[in-house]
Amino acid sequence: MVDIATRVHNHNWKIDPIVRSLIDTDFYKLLMCQSIFRNKPDTTVVFSLINRSKSVRLGDLIDEGELREQLDHVRSLSLSRGESTWLRGNTFYGKRQMFRPDFMEWFEGLRLPPYHLEKRDGQYELTFEGKWPEVMLWEIPALAVLMELRSRAVLRGMGKFELQVLYARAMARLWEKIERLRGIEGLKIADFGTRRRHSFLWQDWCVQAMQEGLGSAFTGTSNCRIAMKRDIEAIGTNAHELPMVYSALTTNDADLAQAPYQVLADWHEEHDGNLRIMLPDTYGTEGFLKNAPDWLSTWTGIRIDSGDPARGAETAIRWWQEKGEDPLKKLVIFSDGLDVAKIEELHRQFAGRVKVSFGWGTMLTNDFRGLAGERLAPFSLVCKAVSANGRPTVKLSDNPNKAMGPAEEVARYKRVFGVADQVAQDLLV
Amino acid sequence: MVDIATRVHNHNWKIDPIVRSLIDTDFYKLLMCQSIFRNKPDTTVVFSLINRSKSVRLGDLIDEGELREQLDHVRSLSLSRGESTWLRGNTFYGKRQMFRPDFMEWFEGLRLPPYHLEKRDGQYELTFEGKWPEVMLWEIPALAVLMELRSRAVLRGMGKFELQVLYARAMARLWEKIERLRGIEGLKIADFGTRRRHSFLWQDWCVQAMQEGLGSAFTGTSNCRIAMKRDIEAIGTNAHELPMVYSALTTNDADLAQAPYQVLADWHEEHDGNLRIMLPDTYGTEGFLKNAPDWLSTWTGIRIDSGDPARGAETAIRWWQEKGEDPLKKLVIFSDGLDVAKIEELHRQFAGRVKVSFGWGTMLTNDFRGLAGERLAPFSLVCKAVSANGRPTVKLSDNPNKAMGPAEEVARYKRVFGVADQVAQDLLV
Repeated sequence: MVDIATRVHNHNWKIDPIVRSLIDTDFYKLLMCQSIFRNKPDTTVVFSLINRSKSVRLGDLIDEGELREQLDHVRSLSLSRGESTWLRGNTFYGKRQMFRPDFMEWFEGLRLPPYHLEKRDGQYELTFEGKWPEVMLWEIPALAVLMELRSRAVLRGMGKFELQVLYARAMARLWEKIERLRGIEGLKIADFGTRRRHSFLWQDWCVQAMQEGLGSAFTGTSNCRIAMKRDIEAIGTNAHELPMVYSALTTNDADLAQAPYQVLADWHEEHDGNLRIMLPDTYGTEGFLKNAPDWLSTWTGIRIDSGDPARGAETAIRWWQEKGEDPLKKLVIFSDGLDVAKIEELHRQFAGRVKVSFGWGTMLTNDFRGLAGERLAPFSLVCKAVSANGRPTVKLSDNPNKAMGPAEEVARYKRVFGVADQVAQDLLV
Repeated sequence: MVDIATRVHNHNWKIDPIVRSLIDTDFYKLLMCQSIFRNKPDTTVVFSLINRSKSVRLGDLIDEGELREQLDHVRSLSLSRGESTWLRGNTFYGKRQMFRPDFMEWFEGLRLPPYHLEKRDGQYELTFEGKWPEVMLWEIPALAVLMELRSRAVLRGMGKFELQVLYARAMARLWEKIERLRGIEGLKIADFGTRRRHSFLWQDWCVQAMQEGLGSAFTGTSNCRIAMKRDIEAIGTNAHELPMVYSALTTNDADLAQAPYQVLADWHEEHDGNLRIMLPDTYGTEGFLKNAPDWLSTWTGIRIDSGDPARGAETAIRWWQEKGEDPLKKLVIFSDGLDVAKIEELHRQFAGRVKVSFGWGTMLTNDFRGLAGERLAPFSLVCKAVSANGRPTVKLSDNPNKAMGPAEEVARYKRVFGVADQVAQDLLV
């Protein structure tokens, strides 16, 4: 039986806007947003979309009108009543009222600020400028829009059954991964794949497949909308933008050297337990740990997001041991460039030495490699804070291929944070 | 949006009865039915379901109540107005009014006759007794019901995503086959997979995938309901039951020796062109051709349904050449145990020497081997005429593993038809 109302509704493209909710975003964006709203509400920032995969010519693939239509749609979104109720009433990381009433009131009134879009050399230059708490919420929707418009552009030419088989193959591939993951005893893994997902519907499918296939080994999703819809845990803590902006706001080297710890001092005040996860690689993990204040060694764990992950984890373990902490009580979250083989390897190496957890991103929600030639293969798109109150931001990370910022500032940061030569790692995504 | 009416309807199991129409059957059953209705309407026959794969214990897998419910549902079916209009008005094999008004009038009033069902030794004994034109229409629905109830029994324990991935894998597998078939220049292939399909919905999917994937190389389906629904050609000519029953009705060896030709003489009167396809293997292809009347060499082609198919086709080619016929104008239809490799091989060997066509059955509509262990692998189920007017039927075929009938009658038939030693071929399906 045809549901006429649904069909008529479907005639409109709005049946599947790419971003369908303000909380179709990563949970840690909301945690950070609240922190910024509290600590640095008046900071003016510029966020910019950067396609590290120059060979993927988004400007040629994606129609500018369609892109504007999707971005305008994102600007039309506001928090629904149900979403607000969920954020206010749900338990996150075992805690009620994670989001404070003043933040929620502000968020309920929020619309995303304007965007600036230009096409240059086959790429889009997409930037967002304004108050930090508002602009930062563009990151995930902007990435999701670009990623999915690219998918749609490639899918457009396919036949109905060709399409169905494409998804059939992607499903079979993911299920094989899940079957391998099932073999890892004590596995804990979450979906971190919102930002570079193939599409919303596909991410939603992947999350459900993980739920059914892994049971309690699947600990949740970073995507708030999907967490709410599927009644599972929303997962995430904090990201590089905090130390990047805090650092850019400093005016001398001494303050700069302390900025990453100031971020965590603010976080320390706000959060406890499993939310006390440090992300040490913004300006080099080794220097960060060497100069870290003692109270940081009491934190619950660490997230390893660049460089050789095994080396990063070993560094953290040594550091905890030096500080008299028991690594067995510490959590190491791996979240960079994971796929099943790497997950197996890291789990083998660290299970039983620390608590291990995985945030699986692109290869969970966008592994279409080889399924339409390489036309649907994931690519490396990021959306980053590039300046704060007019001063440029810098990121070094543990992989020089992920470094960002003006050359002279990169050099200064390297000096201040004592970063020596680093090993370059290929960027798959 | 939920279509409440559909959902409420779906609460009822009748959302997906296994057989949903009297024309959810092979086209050749209707052609043969009309021929029988004209030539042998009062013959009493018994049809019996035979599971050649004893290891598949249908009696344990399938609930008797469910089986009866599905069979009773088949008995409740009658020709719908649209189906009747299609049969009366559609063009089959380029011909209008393939089905004569007197036959259509009878068919419009038809309900299938009762069945007899017993469970013995882990198997069902399912038989149908009555007038030949009525009983013979049970063959395909009975097979489809048993096949699909077995599928459903295996699928019942699976999770939602496990199920989706199962079908995803089956889809990807079929599509790979279709991509290989695309590489065969001049291919002509039809769906003959109704009788041993995994399910109705799956057959319908396979047919549509063949349509999109192969274009004009896909010549149609044997399934009338799907041909009507998808607006494609209904394909099929005649089967072993005609010579088997005609032969059983004879009372001496001389008449028996002529019975298979009498079948084709009746057929010759009714049909021309691409419907004049002989099926020579019921009592051995070599003897059949050796003793065939000259007029049979003017027929359009031959269907090879048992034994080594290449040997059968070579025998036919030699026979046409002896009769002064040009094999290039003759059609050879391969329809036994085909899968892609065999299709490629036979096409390579015979394209350019005869017109080649394929009737692809079980490995098109039921290749679930290895997808749920072997619990969904196809198996060899047939439903055959076992007696006519109280006399047993016999089938020899070109493969002794497909032989049927009482031993002493098999011996007599071998003598009458001059069948010597045969090469046994494994029965996959």
